[in-house]
Amino acid sequence: MVIPLRKIAEAVDGTLDGDGTTLITGAGALDGAKEGDIAYVDTLELLAEGERTAAAALIVPSEAPACSKPVIRTPQPRLAFAKLLALFAPEPRTSPGTHPSAVVGDALQMGDGASVGALAYLGNNVSLGDGVIVGPQACIGDDVCIGARTVVNARAVVHERTVIGEDCIIHSGAVLGADGFGFVPTEDGLHKVPQIGRVVVGNDVEIGANTTIDRGTVGETRIEDGAKIDNLVHIAHNCIIGRHVVICGQTGLSGSVRIEDGAVLGGQVGIRDNTVIGARARIGAQGGVISDVPAGAVYSGYPARPHNQQMRAYAALQRLPELVKRVRQLEKELERREGIENT
Amino acid sequence: MVIPLRKIAEAVDGTLDGDGTTLITGAGALDGAKEGDIAYVDTLELLAEGERTAAAALIVPSEAPACSKPVIRTPQPRLAFAKLLALFAPEPRTSPGTHPSAVVGDALQMGDGASVGALAYLGNNVSLGDGVIVGPQACIGDDVCIGARTVVNARAVVHERTVIGEDCIIHSGAVLGADGFGFVPTEDGLHKVPQIGRVVVGNDVEIGANTTIDRGTVGETRIEDGAKIDNLVHIAHNCIIGRHVVICGQTGLSGSVRIEDGAVLGGQVGIRDNTVIGARARIGAQGGVISDVPAGAVYSGYPARPHNQQMRAYAALQRLPELVKRVRQLEKELERREGIENT
Amino acid sequence: MVIPLRKIAEAVDGTLDGDGTTLITGAGALDGAKEGDIAYVDTLELLAEGERTAAAALIVPSEAPACSKPVIRTPQPRLAFAKLLALFAPEPRTSPGTHPSAVVGDALQMGDGASVGALAYLGNNVSLGDGVIVGPQACIGDDVCIGARTVVNARAVVHERTVIGEDCIIHSGAVLGADGFGFVPTEDGLHKVPQIGRVVVGNDVEIGANTTIDRGTVGETRIEDGAKIDNLVHIAHNCIIGRHVVICGQTGLSGSVRIEDGAVLGGQVGIRDNTVIGARARIGAQGGVISDVPAGAVYSGYPARPHNQQMRAYAALQRLPELVKRVRQLEKELERREGIENT
Repeated sequence: MVIPLRKIAEAVDGTLDGDGTTLITGAGALDGAKEGDIAYVDTLELLAEGERTAAAALIVPSEAPACSKPVIRTPQPRLAFAKLLALFAPEPRTSPGTHPSAVVGDALQMGDGASVGALAYLGNNVSLGDGVIVGPQACIGDDVCIGARTVVNARAVVHERTVIGEDCIIHSGAVLGADGFGFVPTEDGLHKVPQIGRVVVGNDVEIGANTTIDRGTVGETRIEDGAKIDNLVHIAHNCIIGRHVVICGQTGLSGSVRIEDGAVLGGQVGIRDNTVIGARARIGAQGGVISDVPAGAVYSGYPARPHNQQMRAYAALQRLPELVKRVRQLEKELERREGIENT
Repeated sequence: MVIPLRKIAEAVDGTLDGDGTTLITGAGALDGAKEGDIAYVDTLELLAEGERTAAAALIVPSEAPACSKPVIRTPQPRLAFAKLLALFAPEPRTSPGTHPSAVVGDALQMGDGASVGALAYLGNNVSLGDGVIVGPQACIGDDVCIGARTVVNARAVVHERTVIGEDCIIHSGAVLGADGFGFVPTEDGLHKVPQIGRVVVGNDVEIGANTTIDRGTVGETRIEDGAKIDNLVHIAHNCIIGRHVVICGQTGLSGSVRIEDGAVLGGQVGIRDNTVIGARARIGAQGGVISDVPAGAVYSGYPARPHNQQMRAYAALQRLPELVKRVRQLEKELERREGIENT
Repeated sequence: MVIPLRKIAEAVDGTLDGDGTTLITGAGALDGAKEGDIAYVDTLELLAEGERTAAAALIVPSEAPACSKPVIRTPQPRLAFAKLLALFAPEPRTSPGTHPSAVVGDALQMGDGASVGALAYLGNNVSLGDGVIVGPQACIGDDVCIGARTVVNARAVVHERTVIGEDCIIHSGAVLGADGFGFVPTEDGLHKVPQIGRVVVGNDVEIGANTTIDRGTVGETRIEDGAKIDNLVHIAHNCIIGRHVVICGQTGLSGSVRIEDGAVLGGQVGIRDNTVIGARARIGAQGGVISDVPAGAVYSGYPARPHNQQMRAYAALQRLPELVKRVRQLEKELERREGIENT
């Protein structure tokens, strides 16, 4: 694909500064840009590095000084870069309709332009909105409803009665709607609590590869609009994930956890059941949360506490062996003086 | 589904107190019960909250006082609730026999009422007991034997020579019997140790979505009767998981770990290879176990130690920066006095 | 399978000491060897234990004394054992060619002896080298290139444009080439950064069950020759995994992490984005790395630091509650003396 720089400037709503006929053949990271690429520079400090790359052009902050390469000026270079990547993204090669090798149950409702890939399985009473893409080998259970333009990638599983909104991406291997993990101890062992609820996903949600989201025991496990969930995340029964929440890879939520709007969970975080993470709170990677976190707070560590406090504690911990020696020294010194006074 | 309260009381072996003709249309959690629902109250403290819900009836502890709603009394309300959920669980819509789109190898033995779903793959010499359900797109390797009434959900993989007992549930995306992770370092890199053992699963075992259980290097990886394993758990080669063990989400066991009967591992726990967790021991979430844990003990943290001791240490850690100051203060004070004495 | 001991000695390049006609019927671990098995003893300390087993023969270190069983002497018993396991490994039952139930796109190039399993899906322009095995229900996207003798197991997903070298094993449920996790915050929520790069895997690489390796945002996520990756590992966009690196189960790498040659990451390790782990460094299980680790270093804990230092700190932490008491005691003692001096 070859795109003149002027077209890119228009597509990203930026201001062209330099030769708009420059031909751009790809997009590159700052440390790997090749000839013909366009790269972006997020801060003025990186500008010199950007100029040294082989890139044909740069996206730079609006206030950047004059540059040796043609540039596009914009207040948010990274956002502009995200927009231009869409220009270079390979077209998905799906064609509308149901692949003949797919197995489809009764009463399928299929919107305009929707497609069902090879060897996919759809149960009964499935509803797919306009432009939905069900990838090859994906599995959609009975009574599932999927909103317009959502993509369910290869080999994802969406269990019965799940509802997914519009413009979502469900990545390969994700499992939505498996049983929650609930048992009642009895004298004969663990009695299973049947899981009869469902999973409800809002609009514009992304769910990562091999992530699992269990159905509600009763009621719903709910992922609200704009939430983004990375790979290998575990979300247990009856959790509620608020709007625009970000959950990084391998994080795990126990049952009935509530993550309020705009919160961010780092990777490998664990959250105890029935805990609430307040709006816009941030939990550092590997944090273990065992009680509610206030809105806007930044917590980390195990058990999770305010991040600054935790970092001071961990730093002090490294000096602890030496502190032990100092206390021993003090004790000896006092003993010695006691001895002197007693002589 | 509509069930008179009297029928539910019978099904859960409880004592009806109130109008047995009350029609129940669903089951609800205490914080989400709707009109027509039945909910449960596990302790007397929650009784008032239960009465305030819209629920049509409640399951309450035997000794609960009179209530404004019809109730079912029982010594174990949560167990009774688990039993009644089974009444409201949607019937699985499988029909006996092999779906025509499934691919089945030679010499399949299929018990009465067993079913193989759409696009499933079965290797040669597979044996399925009475009432076994193999979900759509599941993969069952050569020489696998699955006991009566076990369910292998959509897209699970059961590799060759695995043995699964009766009444188990293998959730979507689980992989049983992939190679263990073993290599011998050599001058030319890492030489693979071929993994020629198998996985053996007992009766009444549940294995979560996208969980992986590796085969033995030689011999077996064994999951014994009644063990319950959550999603995204990793169980390495030659582990032995005892009877009624509970393993929560994202926990990982290295090679040849033994978990004895009735132990409980919280979420995201990690266990070093060749370690033994004693019977009925409990490991707190995110615990990192690097040496044997005695039967009945409660351990947490990294490296895992007795939980009470660990919690005291973590609490003291938060006061450590202040302690450092206090020790500095003591040192200064002693220096000052030394100075006074020397004047 | 029955193999005379002499043949095994030849296969593993060892020195036979004892009756070479002894018939070996299997291979066993030291603690589970059965009659007819051959087992191995890695150190002289374990020799007596090896002699007590039911094994018919042992593999022992070259310098081992005379033994009551026939033995094979070798400088590296575990390596010899790995080699002989290959003799007892069941033959895979694949046959060359494409199973009629597989769905294959246009312009497939298939090497000699390559096989595509039942219900597998291959996109357009796929190239499979000689002897490649694509397992049942595996999913290979458009423009994927797979080198000779590589095995893609049942139900693995290899997304479009991925390149895999020779002699690799991709285990069941692994997902190569899903989107990286990148978003730009805006006033309207999180704007997706399109992920247009790819995954490139070298030769002799093993990738575990349900592991996910995301494609580069731009450019590549790269796994170099001889790297071994366990189950449920998460490797984010643009990571570079060096030659002969070992990554144990459930470890997670954020974006653009670089692991240099020969490094070893324990299980459940987490690594911050843009971090470099130096060549041959080792990170202990559950370690949380937030800054670069030098070549050859051994780090552990969170935040990860040199392992010895960390272990001393953790040990001291257990004595911290007592240290707090000792400091309180010192303070009291000084106050008491102050009182005495002031009287």
